[in-house]
Amino acid sequence: MKPVIIVSTFPSKQSVTSIANQIVKKKLAACVNITKISSVYTWKGKIENQDEYLALFKTTKKNQLTLKKELEKLHPYDVPEIAEINVESINQPYMKWLVDSTN
Amino acid sequence: MKPVIIVSTFPSKQSVTSIANQIVKKKLAACVNITKISSVYTWKGKIENQDEYLALFKTTKKNQLTLKKELEKLHPYDVPEIAEINVESINQPYMKWLVDSTN
Amino acid sequence: MKPVIIVSTFPSKQSVTSIANQIVKKKLAACVNITKISSVYTWKGKIENQDEYLALFKTTKKNQLTLKKELEKLHPYDVPEIAEINVESINQPYMKWLVDSTN
Repeated sequence: MKPVIIVSTFPSKQSVTSIANQIVKKKLAACVNITKISSVYTWKGKIENQDEYLALFKTTKKNQLTLKKELEKLHPYDVPEIAEINVESINQPYMKWLVDSTN
Repeated sequence: MKPVIIVSTFPSKQSVTSIANQIVKKKLAACVNITKISSVYTWKGKIENQDEYLALFKTTKKNQLTLKKELEKLHPYDVPEIAEINVESINQPYMKWLVDSTN
Repeated sequence: MKPVIIVSTFPSKQSVTSIANQIVKKKLAACVNITKISSVYTWKGKIENQDEYLALFKTTKKNQLTLKKELEKLHPYDVPEIAEINVESINQPYMKWLVDSTN
């Protein structure tokens, strides 16, 4: 069993908190870390500077496909970022907790 | 085409915001996420605790070399961190947006 | 020599700052980036929403095993997260600084 981190960004504290709680309740991730960010990006040819919330979903390889599909369904953005970051290694007790806390 | 995340840290909100806007304007990254951090490090034998800003530049493999060179040129630090993090997978609509928003 | 990022989360500003300073003093990491986060997770069957601090320890492959063991020893949690993230590439001057600042 391997650990996986899924990265996504959200428009508001309310949306990211609500989605993180739903994901953890459904055991698609064991833990979600949320931090406030400023984002700079182009949208329809114009540069935007916008506050957002970045979330790291900690889960197992087994759950990552279902998690991604659920994030696509729940996400308020038309084109959300749902990026998978490889975890090279993790300590054994945390891996056990990840497995026990997910489906 | 593959997605890439480049990580760097900056001394001030003003410097990171200015550089992020230049990078996005030049289409070397589609999006930059910025967050305030505290950093602990040694510099010339002394331990420093300093506020900084961490930036994640989201781009494509095709643009990453030019982005790194531009960051080296614009960066206010003598020895900046310019680290490339592998993205294992990404959702197709976001990948399309990354490609459309970069060179 | 390869760069490594170790990710961990801590319960308070005081604990993460103290441990980051000890790690840098022992030259097990060249730099630690700390940011405040909100975490959502299950603990003993209940969903918790808790403030935490996320830390990124920047070190070399050579130091990562000793760093992980030291983090396990110092960490206030029973089951801390100690995750290793692969760095695909890094600029040469920063790599030199990482090596010079660690054991």
